[in-house]
Amino acid sequence: MQCLVLGAGGFIGTNLCRSLLMKGHTVRAFGRRQSFPEALRGCDWIPGDFADPASLASTISGCDVVFHLVNATTPASANVDKVADLNANVASTLHLLEACRETGVSRVVFVSSGGTIYGIPDQVPTPETASTNPITAYGISKLAIEKYLGLYEYLHHLDYRVLRVANPFGPYQTALKNQGVIAAFVRRALTGQHIEMWGDGCVIRDYIYIDDVVEALILAATHQGPNRIFNIGSGEGRSLNDIVAAIARLLEVDILVERRPARSVDVPVSILDTTLAAQDLTWQASTQFEEGLRVTIAWMKSMH
Amino acid sequence: MQCLVLGAGGFIGTNLCRSLLMKGHTVRAFGRRQSFPEALRGCDWIPGDFADPASLASTISGCDVVFHLVNATTPASANVDKVADLNANVASTLHLLEACRETGVSRVVFVSSGGTIYGIPDQVPTPETASTNPITAYGISKLAIEKYLGLYEYLHHLDYRVLRVANPFGPYQTALKNQGVIAAFVRRALTGQHIEMWGDGCVIRDYIYIDDVVEALILAATHQGPNRIFNIGSGEGRSLNDIVAAIARLLEVDILVERRPARSVDVPVSILDTTLAAQDLTWQASTQFEEGLRVTIAWMKSMH
Repeated sequence: MQCLVLGAGGFIGTNLCRSLLMKGHTVRAFGRRQSFPEALRGCDWIPGDFADPASLASTISGCDVVFHLVNATTPASANVDKVADLNANVASTLHLLEACRETGVSRVVFVSSGGTIYGIPDQVPTPETASTNPITAYGISKLAIEKYLGLYEYLHHLDYRVLRVANPFGPYQTALKNQGVIAAFVRRALTGQHIEMWGDGCVIRDYIYIDDVVEALILAATHQGPNRIFNIGSGEGRSLNDIVAAIARLLEVDILVERRPARSVDVPVSILDTTLAAQDLTWQASTQFEEGLRVTIAWMKSMH
Repeated sequence: MQCLVLGAGGFIGTNLCRSLLMKGHTVRAFGRRQSFPEALRGCDWIPGDFADPASLASTISGCDVVFHLVNATTPASANVDKVADLNANVASTLHLLEACRETGVSRVVFVSSGGTIYGIPDQVPTPETASTNPITAYGISKLAIEKYLGLYEYLHHLDYRVLRVANPFGPYQTALKNQGVIAAFVRRALTGQHIEMWGDGCVIRDYIYIDDVVEALILAATHQGPNRIFNIGSGEGRSLNDIVAAIARLLEVDILVERRPARSVDVPVSILDTTLAAQDLTWQASTQFEEGLRVTIAWMKSMH
């Protein structure tokens, strides 16, 4: 496949590009900056801003599959300026879809947010059919993009798949934008610093190792069948306190936790039901949490 | 109540303002233009553009309830320029909600779209819990606004109610923006012109008389209870061919129909399940269709 990865310089993007290359695909890697330029060797790196329609249009031409991994905001920052979030994510995606339609892209694979799109879930584990009432503008933007993807398929036959990804972790996650608690916690533990934690640490998330996410993304690029939206998670819930304990165990250190007030953007529990992906994408998370954490720690050590 | 009606110069707005005044409320009527200035006598008319945040902020101060009836686009026009639709409706509403929060508005009542928000319905009649997959950007904008209302209540305790209104008809509907088939059909029949119809006339809609919609809006302004979103429709389906036949019968004329190709924005059937509004708002449509049509025809005759 001739692939375009938007947001290629980020955590998921870097891992996806490497895996696509290894499988023999041609990869255009588009992004604002590369955190790890050497990791993207072999890709055609195209620097550009997703919010600039002109820089996108010329990039798309000739691509079969477009992976849309761009997050212009974070759950916390999106709530601060909701209009900016709407423009940077949703309006920019509309420009992208228009360009995809004009250039005859075969499929768009979009990374949505399994952790925020359902809001406070009425079912746990949460299936794709659950109600979607985000408590962050970030989640609303993701939901709106999903709906516009449906509209473009209906109106213009632009094929798409959506992966509602839980909390991914692994190599190339930097925690620079206040996302990625595992990366943040490991980095602080490795440098002997205390960990800052919002709330009492009982917030439960579904952490999924990045290789499993990348596998799902590549399966989604060629999936056939009527379903469009798939949860991608481990199906297991872990509290922040569990995470700290696991890191302390693997590093064989004591970790000091400094607690801060709970944040309104954090739902109390998020665990995804991935039955549909298992049935339809023949995908399931295959990396054990502790094994993924071990690899992540080894990678972070190698970066120091 | 001190009420602000946004989009007061339009069809629903004009009827709502008149009814609020009759019930003794104080009404600020905000809009770009008044189609029927004499109908809004007694309101404090404030000319302004919803897309201009500055003109909104000063208008809101001191209001208890804000009725948001603004449609900057139509289902057909929204699909043509989806980014413009997003800006004019969703981004502008975010500015409104921010202003409501700052000025301490008690409640926002938003008119959403019962006819487009569900897309091609998987249940008919369609309850509020049905899936929402609009086939127009218009419907996606309405859905996004509903989600942002939920977010503002969650984050900032701004109370709201949403009415997903079916296809309203009645006095003060002008069919100027290619909406309102009944107004359009009656006007052409009254002037002896043929009727233009998209598709084969089998498209089924839920037509609701405007007085019933206005009653629901006023109930929604003071409703207490946990539900936020209510379908407002007659619960009955009528085809375009039914409508033409009913108009011909009441006017005692033959009507010539010129058929045009079906439009992609038209779902084949839309009938709302209004059980929740009956239970929770103690509301139900009380105007018989033929009676509403009779009053509408009489009003349109009086305008000629």
